Amino acid sequence: SVNPDLASERRTASFSVEKLTTWLDGGAEQTRLRRAVVEAIEGDPVFSRENQYFQSQNERYEAAVRNAVHLQKKMHEMGWSENGPEFKYIYRAVAGEIAFLLHRVFMRSVSMLGSDEQVAKWIPLASQYQLIGSYAQTELGHGTYLQGLETTAVFDVTTQEFILNTPKISAMKWWPGDMGRSATHTVVFAQLYVHGKSYGIHPFIVQIRSLQDHSLCPGIIAGDIGPKMNFEHIDNGYLMLQNVRVPRENMLSKFCEVQPDGTYVRRGSQKINYFTMTSVRISLISGEAILPLMKACTIAIRYSAVRRQSKLKPGEQEAKILDYQTQQEKLLPQLATAYAFHFIDDYLQELFDRGYREIQRKNFDTLPELHALSSGFKAVVTQFCTSGVEICLRACGGHGYSLLSGLPSLYTKIIASCIYEGENTILLLQTARFLIKCFMASSTGQPIPPSVTYLAAVKPGNCPAKNKLDFLHPDIYTEAYQHVAVRLVSSTAAKLQDLIQSGVKKHDAWNQCTVQLVQAAKAHCHYITVKNFAEIVEKIETKAGIQKIMKHLCDLFALYGIFSNTGVFLHDGYISGAQMDMVTASYLDLLAIIRKDAVPLVDAFDFTDKSLNSALGCYDGQVYQRLYEWAQKSPTNKQMSPAYGKYLKPLLHNRLSKL
Amino acid sequence: SVNPDLASERRTASFSVEKLTTWLDGGAEQTRLRRAVVEAIEGDPVFSRENQYFQSQNERYEAAVRNAVHLQKKMHEMGWSENGPEFKYIYRAVAGEIAFLLHRVFMRSVSMLGSDEQVAKWIPLASQYQLIGSYAQTELGHGTYLQGLETTAVFDVTTQEFILNTPKISAMKWWPGDMGRSATHTVVFAQLYVHGKSYGIHPFIVQIRSLQDHSLCPGIIAGDIGPKMNFEHIDNGYLMLQNVRVPRENMLSKFCEVQPDGTYVRRGSQKINYFTMTSVRISLISGEAILPLMKACTIAIRYSAVRRQSKLKPGEQEAKILDYQTQQEKLLPQLATAYAFHFIDDYLQELFDRGYREIQRKNFDTLPELHALSSGFKAVVTQFCTSGVEICLRACGGHGYSLLSGLPSLYTKIIASCIYEGENTILLLQTARFLIKCFMASSTGQPIPPSVTYLAAVKPGNCPAKNKLDFLHPDIYTEAYQHVAVRLVSSTAAKLQDLIQSGVKKHDAWNQCTVQLVQAAKAHCHYITVKNFAEIVEKIETKAGIQKIMKHLCDLFALYGIFSNTGVFLHDGYISGAQMDMVTASYLDLLAIIRKDAVPLVDAFDFTDKSLNSALGCYDGQVYQRLYEWAQKSPTNKQMSPAYGKYLKPLLHNRLSKL
Repeated sequence: SVNPDLASERRTASFSVEKLTTWLDGGAEQTRLRRAVVEAIEGDPVFSRENQYFQSQNERYEAAVRNAVHLQKKMHEMGWSENGPEFKYIYRAVAGEIAFLLHRVFMRSVSMLGSDEQVAKWIPLASQYQLIGSYAQTELGHGTYLQGLETTAVFDVTTQEFILNTPKISAMKWWPGDMGRSATHTVVFAQLYVHGKSYGIHPFIVQIRSLQDHSLCPGIIAGDIGPKMNFEHIDNGYLMLQNVRVPRENMLSKFCEVQPDGTYVRRGSQKINYFTMTSVRISLISGEAILPLMKACTIAIRYSAVRRQSKLKPGEQEAKILDYQTQQEKLLPQLATAYAFHFIDDYLQELFDRGYREIQRKNFDTLPELHALSSGFKAVVTQFCTSGVEICLRACGGHGYSLLSGLPSLYTKIIASCIYEGENTILLLQTARFLIKCFMASSTGQPIPPSVTYLAAVKPGNCPAKNKLDFLHPDIYTEAYQHVAVRLVSSTAAKLQDLIQSGVKKHDAWNQCTVQLVQAAKAHCHYITVKNFAEIVEKIETKAGIQKIMKHLCDLFALYGIFSNTGVFLHDGYISGAQMDMVTASYLDLLAIIRKDAVPLVDAFDFTDKSLNSALGCYDGQVYQRLYEWAQKSPTNKQMSPAYGKYLKPLLHNRLSKL
Repeated sequence: SVNPDLASERRTASFSVEKLTTWLDGGAEQTRLRRAVVEAIEGDPVFSRENQYFQSQNERYEAAVRNAVHLQKKMHEMGWSENGPEFKYIYRAVAGEIAFLLHRVFMRSVSMLGSDEQVAKWIPLASQYQLIGSYAQTELGHGTYLQGLETTAVFDVTTQEFILNTPKISAMKWWPGDMGRSATHTVVFAQLYVHGKSYGIHPFIVQIRSLQDHSLCPGIIAGDIGPKMNFEHIDNGYLMLQNVRVPRENMLSKFCEVQPDGTYVRRGSQKINYFTMTSVRISLISGEAILPLMKACTIAIRYSAVRRQSKLKPGEQEAKILDYQTQQEKLLPQLATAYAFHFIDDYLQELFDRGYREIQRKNFDTLPELHALSSGFKAVVTQFCTSGVEICLRACGGHGYSLLSGLPSLYTKIIASCIYEGENTILLLQTARFLIKCFMASSTGQPIPPSVTYLAAVKPGNCPAKNKLDFLHPDIYTEAYQHVAVRLVSSTAAKLQDLIQSGVKKHDAWNQCTVQLVQAAKAHCHYITVKNFAEIVEKIETKAGIQKIMKHLCDLFALYGIFSNTGVFLHDGYISGAQMDMVTASYLDLLAIIRKDAVPLVDAFDFTDKSLNSALGCYDGQVYQRLYEWAQKSPTNKQMSPAYGKYLKPLLHNRLSKL
């Protein structure tokens, strides 16, 4: 039975939860499809995550491999394919607890970087799992800076082979997923040398384990890099190469080839590679950042409607913690953020699809903008979502700290998203470089991409709001965000120019501005997020109260951003101190309004209990019962610890002096 | 051999590292003592933490019990006592990996709350470990709000016993350390009923496990609450009581007693209990928050001096990541924060010692101030240190995410300090209540405690700084912090009064101001931290460049606080936009200055490699070699996973269709 404290929250919803769910999914058919996939996966006991929080790294790895293999069978059974409409819901349904993700990256690299012959040879083997692939780029001493990779591949013209080597420890491949224990093959990125001349980084297919007995191939030293903060189910690996020889045909050669005599030939544009990075960054935003935040909000908000603590009014029963303003101020902005980013994800997908169509027509003009937006949003979304999950965890007090709440795992996993596929600070600086370039171009009248035209159209004047209600007008707050973004970009551009004109070298000047450049890039993404949310709300035609509550959430997201970054809005007086008090008042008012719909708003995310895997977040709100039941299953309760016989018993049975 | 990149950092130190270390320790004798303790503990293989990152919850518990028992022996051998000068260094040396901490809390409660007879009976048993104690206050459904506890203790006058019961699941004791598997006894807090009348919460000594075979006593259901984000070495437990009878003498009765006929007698003041909470909060600040931040800074800064990535100047070798402004901006403020809090800890200890002397003279006047400061600083210090550790972790990129870096464990442990011993938001609101009370009192001319007299002496005018160098004057920035604290306290007090005068009920008005009250409490603590740091720097007499570098750190801490909270300083124009640009300029200048001494500044914390337990943070900077060596020891590399035989081999050897 549903906890009455949660049931009462649902009775007073101001909108139809089911209608909001289908709207978020993009239509009733998508909702049906998603639920069917989730049901098929969660109904299959092989995929059960029931004991996940009790498992060791070894056990989680084994389960992830089992899941990956079983998924092939399942897909066959269900008639799902990798290109089918169900596919995007599968990863969500298995909650990421699955191996062979790098196998897919292996296949994508071969497809993108391989010649037609190479694709014809390797892709069928890989799709039939006659090999398991990985992707070995990062080294122990080298991440982002690809030119710095130290692994070497020397062409031996006499045998028509490349000889691959790891010249020192810092050059060991380190981190590649699926490589520590699973992969038989991998794509190794190495510095190519032909006849003593260096040609830079190139990709080579290298077999690392026997297809017969999985033993390491000659010259290969490989293993697992050991325990991590999370991702225990993935065998991130290390790889050392000692005079490993691969045939000439194993260098992926869509864009460049070493001919039998050692002649190096380059062909075609490699710009498409940028596009791959862009697509990966955009594709991870939803599953790796937004969904975890949505889950965390669901858990924390449901729990806060059930947990009671202290009295808000004398003489009454203890209050739901969700009724405390401070608790609302922790959770509701995170909820608004989850919605805001859900819409930004749509925005980026659309931009990406449009860009992809252009690129297929060999028009690469949209690439810089796509690259800048995908970099900036990857950084901003993962950063905000990581903070959001942490806030949700801490807002659940002690019980949030138990793995059984589901929140620690969400946190220890999402924090990695700030680092992988481009460390966030580096990504923001790439966005900033684009912004500065566009700002400079616009000041000399050159055309600039649509997402940044606002940089050219600076409006004078200050914020016109006269009372707190004015701050509920999207025009008012959107313009404030725009103003701040323009100010930060232009002032940093000015500082950069001043430094250079005063004789500081270009690269030093850039370094001296990077803290401010990062701020500018964030402001740009924040502005686009607010603007996009406001535009979405404007366009909603769905009835059933959805527009109204979405408007509230949009307002909350915007005002929260101002309230928690007051300085950048106050700096040049665009918003005055008195106006900031109005922002604060409106912001706090909104908390009380949205609080009423908080539970329905997380219900609309439509997570099953199994997908949340949380004793605190279940739909029925029976949190204490579940914590107790789950705790009893812990291996720490399975038997008396050897510590008793070894240490406690002797201690208790003897006087201390005899120890 | 030391990595040359780290050696070069040490050659250019602007001060004597050894002199700074002894000054931080409080003198050369303390340093000698600390090192002797650390050497004795770390030199003993029983205390080795070498395999800690590979251990399961069960294994870590066993190791913690082993350590606790062995420590007794060690202390005896070394001639150390619980009251000796070495004691404070022992916990630091074992890095918290030790059981029976709650046993000590059990003893303290008996001493504080027990009658002379009870102390005489139980303390010798406990000190001789003829029982193992725990402390059962928190329940599944109840934390902070003690009056809400649901466990009952009904006096049975016929048998002269109390009958203890857990009336429902939410009343189960939950979280007490050492209780899940170790304790034989515990202090249970329960609602006392005599002849049907309720007398509120009282403490009872209850035996929960047999002293013979450790089996649970009749009526006791107890166990481990299962996996947590960290603290796997502690057996946090649950406890359900079913008609458990304890003799009348087991109610701790220093302050109140139930006489044989059921008469309830109260005696003496319980104010001393507040003092206990205060002392616990102050005592945890150093070991649980500041030391972990110091460790995280040591790891991240040493690694940043060794890790090279991308080129800062064209044509040169890849740059140390510590040379990037964005990396400095992440790490150096955390370093300054660690120093600032080290001095605040001294300040609080001194205040506490003075308060303790007063209380021994039955003067409780300092209690409210002590309570407010210990609450506020517990919250602010744990919050800042938790964020700081997270920043350090993320600043180390992928390798920071490996458990072998030591950073994930520091983080997953320190985050708990924001929740235990009073959840931070609740604590800040207690500080805020004190501030509002004092502010009101001062406005009617009543005397207020020394730490808040500044609230009464509001100075008019704005910040007088005229250029960026002016912001390096402690008077300038200290006054800015003071101004902000006064403004936030007074404006929130005004809002509160306005609401009440407009008819809002007092408790509702309070709730509607809590977001701002929390801000005010933080501002107060921040101000005191800056002021105290500046005063310490002023008084330094040590030579050898220490005052100079401490002055830089103090400036950095102060300007970082302004730079990252510009809004509160700009709000009423106390600091103007133009002045804020000066702050930013001075702040960024300081980063480049302190960067030169960054490694010596963390070396001065004097952590041994064993205490850091980090592949990235070792003194010699051989990070890649160590990551590789440590990874090879991982259980994931001990043998081929069963996943190969079960799943991978069948997959690779059969065509997919046969699966």
